[in-house]
Formats: sequence, C-alpha cells, structure tokens
Amino acid sequence: MPRETPDTASTAAPASAGEPTANIGVVGLAVMGSNLARNLASREGNTVAVFNRSRSKTDELVAEHPEAGFVPAFSYEEFAASLQKPRTAIIMVKAGGPTDAVIDELMNVFEPGDIIIDGGNSLFTDTIRREKAVRERGFNFVGMGVSGGEEGALNGPSLMPGGPDEAWVTLGPILRSIAAVAEGEPCVTHIGHDGAGHFVKMVHNGIEYADMQLIAEAYDLIRRATGKTPAEIADIFAEWNRGELESYLIEITAEVLRQTDAATGKPLVDVILDQAGAKGTGAWTVQTALDLGVPVSGIAEATFARSLSSHPEQRAAASALPGPELSGGEVLAGEDAAAFIEQVRLALYASKIVAYSQGFDEIRAGAAQYGWNIDLGAVSKIWRGGCIIRAQFLNRIADAYAATPDLPVLLTAPYFVDALTRAQDSWRSIVALAAASGIPAPAFSSSLAYYDGLRAERLPAALIQGQRDFFGAHTYKRIDKEGTFHTLWSGDRTEVEVEDTH
Amino acid sequence: MPRETPDTASTAAPASAGEPTANIGVVGLAVMGSNLARNLASREGNTVAVFNRSRSKTDELVAEHPEAGFVPAFSYEEFAASLQKPRTAIIMVKAGGPTDAVIDELMNVFEPGDIIIDGGNSLFTDTIRREKAVRERGFNFVGMGVSGGEEGALNGPSLMPGGPDEAWVTLGPILRSIAAVAEGEPCVTHIGHDGAGHFVKMVHNGIEYADMQLIAEAYDLIRRATGKTPAEIADIFAEWNRGELESYLIEITAEVLRQTDAATGKPLVDVILDQAGAKGTGAWTVQTALDLGVPVSGIAEATFARSLSSHPEQRAAASALPGPELSGGEVLAGEDAAAFIEQVRLALYASKIVAYSQGFDEIRAGAAQYGWNIDLGAVSKIWRGGCIIRAQFLNRIADAYAATPDLPVLLTAPYFVDALTRAQDSWRSIVALAAASGIPAPAFSSSLAYYDGLRAERLPAALIQGQRDFFGAHTYKRIDKEGTFHTLWSGDRTEVEVEDTH
Repeated sequence: MPRETPDTASTAAPASAGEPTANIGVVGLAVMGSNLARNLASREGNTVAVFNRSRSKTDELVAEHPEAGFVPAFSYEEFAASLQKPRTAIIMVKAGGPTDAVIDELMNVFEPGDIIIDGGNSLFTDTIRREKAVRERGFNFVGMGVSGGEEGALNGPSLMPGGPDEAWVTLGPILRSIAAVAEGEPCVTHIGHDGAGHFVKMVHNGIEYADMQLIAEAYDLIRRATGKTPAEIADIFAEWNRGELESYLIEITAEVLRQTDAATGKPLVDVILDQAGAKGTGAWTVQTALDLGVPVSGIAEATFARSLSSHPEQRAAASALPGPELSGGEVLAGEDAAAFIEQVRLALYASKIVAYSQGFDEIRAGAAQYGWNIDLGAVSKIWRGGCIIRAQFLNRIADAYAATPDLPVLLTAPYFVDALTRAQDSWRSIVALAAASGIPAPAFSSSLAYYDGLRAERLPAALIQGQRDFFGAHTYKRIDKEGTFHTLWSGDRTEVEVEDTH
Repeated sequence: MPRETPDTASTAAPASAGEPTANIGVVGLAVMGSNLARNLASREGNTVAVFNRSRSKTDELVAEHPEAGFVPAFSYEEFAASLQKPRTAIIMVKAGGPTDAVIDELMNVFEPGDIIIDGGNSLFTDTIRREKAVRERGFNFVGMGVSGGEEGALNGPSLMPGGPDEAWVTLGPILRSIAAVAEGEPCVTHIGHDGAGHFVKMVHNGIEYADMQLIAEAYDLIRRATGKTPAEIADIFAEWNRGELESYLIEITAEVLRQTDAATGKPLVDVILDQAGAKGTGAWTVQTALDLGVPVSGIAEATFARSLSSHPEQRAAASALPGPELSGGEVLAGEDAAAFIEQVRLALYASKIVAYSQGFDEIRAGAAQYGWNIDLGAVSKIWRGGCIIRAQFLNRIADAYAATPDLPVLLTAPYFVDALTRAQDSWRSIVALAAASGIPAPAFSSSLAYYDGLRAERLPAALIQGQRDFFGAHTYKRIDKEGTFHTLWSGDRTEVEVEDTH
C-alpha cells in the first residue's frame, strides 16, 4: 500500500500517536488566535499545538504555515495528548458563552495543575468568576488581556496576564518570548490575581477611547478654525509625533488624514461616514468606574461622543438648531493659525494627561477594591510597546510611580504639574474658543473641568449636601467638627447631631 | 375579669380574628413605609394593614396614630388574613436581599391573583427578574418608583408603578388617592410592564443629579465672579423661581443658601463639608445609558462631580496645581454683575433642557429595548408634583410629546429650540468664562458640547472610524454608497469592500 503523501499528513495527522511534543497550545484559530499561534511558533523553544472547533481552519493554518511546525489536533482529547505537562493552553474565542464552553471542554481532558488561559476580551468580573470555578477543580486559570490587534498578536502584543503565581512560573518565559519589546523590556508583566489582567486591559481600552476622541477634537478644531485640509493637518500630526505627543495613535492619525480616496479624489476622512462604532470596552470602563466612585469623565465623554455620532435620526432633527451668532466664515491664517495650532497641541497634551491620570486612578481603585497588588509603574511600561496607546509619554508615568509609588493622583506628579502649568493657558483658550464658536469639544472641556474641580479649594458640593439634607434628610458633615448633622428644615431650622446611618 | 383597656387592644390585638377588613397593606415600617401607610389610611375608603419584622415598630406606629385605624399584624399569616382579596401589599424595605425575602414570605401566605408591590428603590433589572418569578407562581408583581422622600410619602408622592395591567385595575384607584396632585391631576400613571416603573424612577433620579449639579455650578459661578454672599445669591434664586426656572430644587436652593449656621454665624453652606454623597441611582442611570448607547453626559458629569468631591486626599494633593494667569481678584459689580447673572440664568436653563432631553432619550431607548409602551408625556406630567424635580417646566415637555409623540430628541421641539436660541450666546459666554477663569463647570460645558455635537453637520467620528480601521480592521461605511469597507493600510492602501461582520 502506498504511504500517504507528506502534504496530507501534515494537515491531517493527529498528534496523539506518540509522546506529547508541544509546550503550549492555542484553541480558536480565527485571525487573533492564528496570529498568536504563529508568533509563539516563531520563538525559539516553542512547539505549538493548535485546535479549532471546525477542522478547516486548523488545516488551513497548518498548510499555510509549514515553517511553524504546528502540532494540529482535531479533538480536545488529541489537543490534551499533544501537550507536555503542565499543559498550557491559550483560548482565543469570542468572549462570553463560547469562552465558558471551551473552558469546560479543556477541564474534561486536562489534569489538575494544568494552565488554562483566556486571551479574549473578557469582562474582568467574568474572569474572577471563572478563576474561582476553575481553581476549585484544581486547574490554574489566567485571564489575559492581549492588546495590539491582529498585527500585535503576530509580531508582539502587549500582554496583561492575571491569575495565580504558580501559573506565572510556567507562563512567564513563554509570554516574555512573544511580547512586544520596548526599550529592551518585554511588554508583559504578571498584573495580579484572578481578574486583574482583564481589568487593566479594560482600562487600557477606555484610555484608548479618550485618546482617540481628544485627537479627533484637535483635528476638528484645527480644520474648522484654520480651514486647513486633511493632508495639511496630517503634516501637523506628523510633526507633533516628533515631540512630547509621540505615540502610535498620533502617527496613524497622520496616515489616515493623508489618505486620498481613489474613487472620488477626496480626502478619505471626508467620505467615511461619521458614525463611530464601539465594541463595549469603553462602556465597561465607565460602568466600572461608577461602581468604584472614580471620576473618568474623559473616557465617559469619549464613549458618549461615539454614541451621539451613531444616532443619525437625532442628528438630522437637531441639524436645524442654531449655532453661535459670531460672524463666522473667517478663518485663522499665517502666524495666527500657527499660534492656534500650538495652543491646540498643548490643550491636547494637557487633556491627555488628565485622561491617563483618570485611567490609572481607576486601576488604583480597582486594585484596592479587589485586593490586587498592581504595580502601576509596571503597567505603564508594558503599554510602551505592542498596544494601541503605546507612547513615549508612558515613560513619564513610570517615572512618576517610581518616584512616588503611592501617588494619590497621577497628574500631581512633578513632571505633569510642569506640563500642565505650561499648557493651561492654551488649554483654557481652546476650550473657550470651542464654546464660543460652536465646535463640539466634549473631551477637551471635560478634562479641563476635572482639572479645575480637583484643584478647587471649595466645591459647590457643599450646596448639594445642603439640598440633599433639605429634601431627603440625608445629613451632612461640617468642616469644623466631627459628627453627622441635620438641619430641621421643616421645623425651627436648628441643627441636630444625628447618628451616621446614611 | 376586667376587659383589656382599649389602648392595649389597639396596639397589640391581632387582626386575624374576624373577616379581613383591610384593602391594602404595608410591609416595612421605617420612615418611608410608615409615612406611606399613614398617607393611605388618611384617604377615604382605605383600611390599611401594617406589618414589620420587629414588632416594636408596628406597636409604635399604631399607638402614635390612632386616627389612622391601622390593622396591625404580627406575622405574615396575620397580615394575609387581614387583607381582602385580591390582597394588595406594598413592600417598603431595603432594596436587594431584604426585598427578595419579603416577596418569598408573602408568596407563602398569599393566593394567586394577589398583588405584591415593591415600593423600594430597586434596580429595574431586579424588578424584571422578580416580576417573572412572581408571575410564574400566579401572583401579580408591581415594581413601583416612589419619589418625594419622607415628606412626599406622607403627603403625596409621585408614583411610577410598572407591572401587569391586571394589577393596575385594583391598584390604580388606591394610588390615585394618595399621589400628589398637579394641576388637578394625580401624579401617578401605569408606566408599563415589569421593570418600567423602576426604570423611569431611576432616570428621574439621574435627571435630579444633573439638575442639582447645574444649580451648584450656577451658584459657584455667581459667587466667584461677583463676590455676592450666599444670602444675596439666595435672593437671586428666589427671583429665578418666579420665572421659567420655577422648580422645587430652585426653591430649596434659596432656602439652603439663606440659612445661617447658629454656631458660627456663617452661612450654613460655608460650614458644610464639600463632599457630596450619593445613593447609587445616578450611577445606575449612566451605566444603563451606556448599555443602551444613549449619551447622558450631563448626568455622567454630575455623578462624577460628586465622586471627585469625595476624594479629599486627591484634592489635597491637587490643591497646588496652578490656576489661570488671569489677573483675578477683581469681581463683577453693578450692571456688569446683573448682566452676568442673567447670562448664568440662561446658561442654566439651556443646560437643564439638555439634561432633561438626555434623560427622556434614555427612557425612550429603554422602552424600545425592553418592549415597554411608555407615554413620555404622561411621565413628564406625573413629575410635576410630589417629586424632587417637580417643576413648571415639565408642562413644556408634556406639550412637546403631545404635539409630536415620536419626537426623536426632546430638545428639537419648537419650544425648546426657541429657548435654546434665546439662551445660547449667554451659555457660550458662561462656559468660556468658566474655562478662562478656572471655575469648574463640568455639567454646563458638557451640555453645551452635546448641543454642538448633536447639531454638527459633520463630526470627527469619521477620523475615529479611520483610526479603528487602521489599527484593528474594524471597517467603515461611506457617505456615498452602501456597503462596508476596509483600506489595506499595511498593503497598497487600496480600499476593499468586505462583509459586514463587525
């Protein structure tokens, strides 16, 4: 009988015949999973088992990448048999039900001590729940944030693994081998237990929303106030990318603005429908911050700006609403335009500092709430490469936490105080100009209001406490003595001290 | 043997001896429950059974209010026996576990067809869950929002009942008898099925947060810009309360600002600690809006302003951050002050329109999502009395929905367009002044940015879509043709049409 051809064998031979040869496996071979598997396989010392629910994806991947030496599996049993112990498998499937299903399947074929990693975009509270359930059955569970999209997964993502210390011993060297590298350091660190990794990934995405909205507002302000073309504004962003704003998002903004639409000859940005989509992680970040009592107003405004843009029927109805009665029509030019653009740059930088400060505040509060020991400086360092918000700027955050690990709020670090001091007059001018000229700048204005609120000696929150005591007997504290007080508003209006039960 | 004295009998005799005499019962006799029970008992035709887990509260209530003719019960069995069929009971206990526990107890002693009402501040998703569980056992369940605090519960609250139509037949007349009355109409309507009542109550509270924050910002701006005393500003609010801003919150703001602290002789607002508390319904409103994709930025900023105020350690660290380099020190006086105050009034009114428009937008979206047939005009009418946000202004909302029931967004109704047109120049000036002078006005600025965003012909959301397509192949739509597109950014940068799977 003729032997099977090597080609057929390589795409279909099950791996379970002999000794296990793979030190890591990937379940789920859509583009993120395939790219992560190829990344793993390309690193010295890794042999990668791959498995997908539908066989064709596995065949395709193995056939297209013979150089990877993948060990294909066509059942969970084969997948388990192909992995050396402790078995280590990364799940790359849709968050939610599919993730739970794969975890269950793996627990059926794995043994206690094996490591199950969820590399999807799971909500951290799901990860906390899963970690507990999986741990109770004796396995190790790692919820891992993977940032950088398809490109990052293939060439070096920023990785945010949570989970038990025990898993990190096996997993650490493998993850360090595939992560992006920034200034010689791999962009991965053990974030903390159970849901810590997915929590930090969620906030990363929230910051990304804010950063993108701020850039969009800067572009819109420059375009409307100076009349410059997208291509001219592309040059401005490219220039900014050589200074303190240097970052991946600024870099790609220049690329997008420079792109011409082949069909119409217009700037691409002018033919793209102006309704921004979202995958939900911005909303999660804000929802979680509300539970934690952390003001992340910049991320909230960015998320709401996207939802506002996506209601065309409301926007059509509102298009008749009047704008300002300013003369209009005239645009800034020459020196005036140059000065204005510099003001926008400073306003963008200041607003960006606020957005990151709010995001790190949420991580700090989340760590306190969930008992995670998160090194905020290490988080900022692993975001320097591989992920969407990668930027030079993150070194300044690392410096700030290195100098003062228990910094109560990031923007009070000396470097940022200097930057804000330098920027604030421009920031104020830009927000005022946006208001006066009818250009929406929700994230710019919100960041400035946060800054002025945080530094205010007295806030009108005292009046709100008075109102709440008036209508709901919610009581108040005083600035000059301990205790909880209530004014008898519907009585003789004397003040009484009450038990603090509210 | 001597007979028992009437006094002892009235506080302790169980009701179960004879025929059931009560047409409604209240479980949970803390202040809200007691007041609601007294309100019910004071209306013609009602006999009210009362029950509390600890007997002392029941005894106390019955002893203190012999005029009410309460039928006290000391066990769930007695409570059920005292009620005519269909038995109708309002639960007024702490939201969460305690509510579930009482529902279970009542189902043990009630019969199918009886009506169980939760009058607590429950999250609407809990109400949806409970309504389903209770209905499956044959009972009627009504989640009911009760607004107006202790005073409202006693003298006439605004009531927002959800639940099945069948329950409304029995419950409607009772609730109409106890509700506040506004312009001759009782402040109660059947909002919709299952969680609709608690949903609407939640949004009511969210709007209340925004309204209070806007008032607080107006006060702060006037005080800082004109140097007027709280008592002088009280006069301004009292004056405003005679115009289009007329509302309970404006009225009590004047009262709070006029109050002098007896201990120090200072304005009370100056001795109250400026850290605003919250009970969570503001956060729920924003969290739900994020799920629904409805921008409620005013409510979000108001909620975040409270959480910002409640981080004293961060505020202390930030107090060294610099303010604007404007000369400062000088305040507006005379005609300038009067003109400024009028601008603040107009800015407040415009921002308030935005806050209410966003809130009604959330109700509209919630109704669509959960299949509730909510009459938005009726909602605005039942808020005219009894509740915290009661105001003349709500008639204008009712008018708007009467004229155009499917209004896509409230602020596009002609009355509001007129008001916004009149207000907008002042609104812009105030937001610009706040930014320039370092006075935090997050809700004022956010509302204006929303206004300018909604009416914008083009939004920079197009750039965001371009960025998302660049880094994540999230695709985009075009303004000039159907389909879903992707630019090959890392290839030759041509555009390809793709399946819309994102």
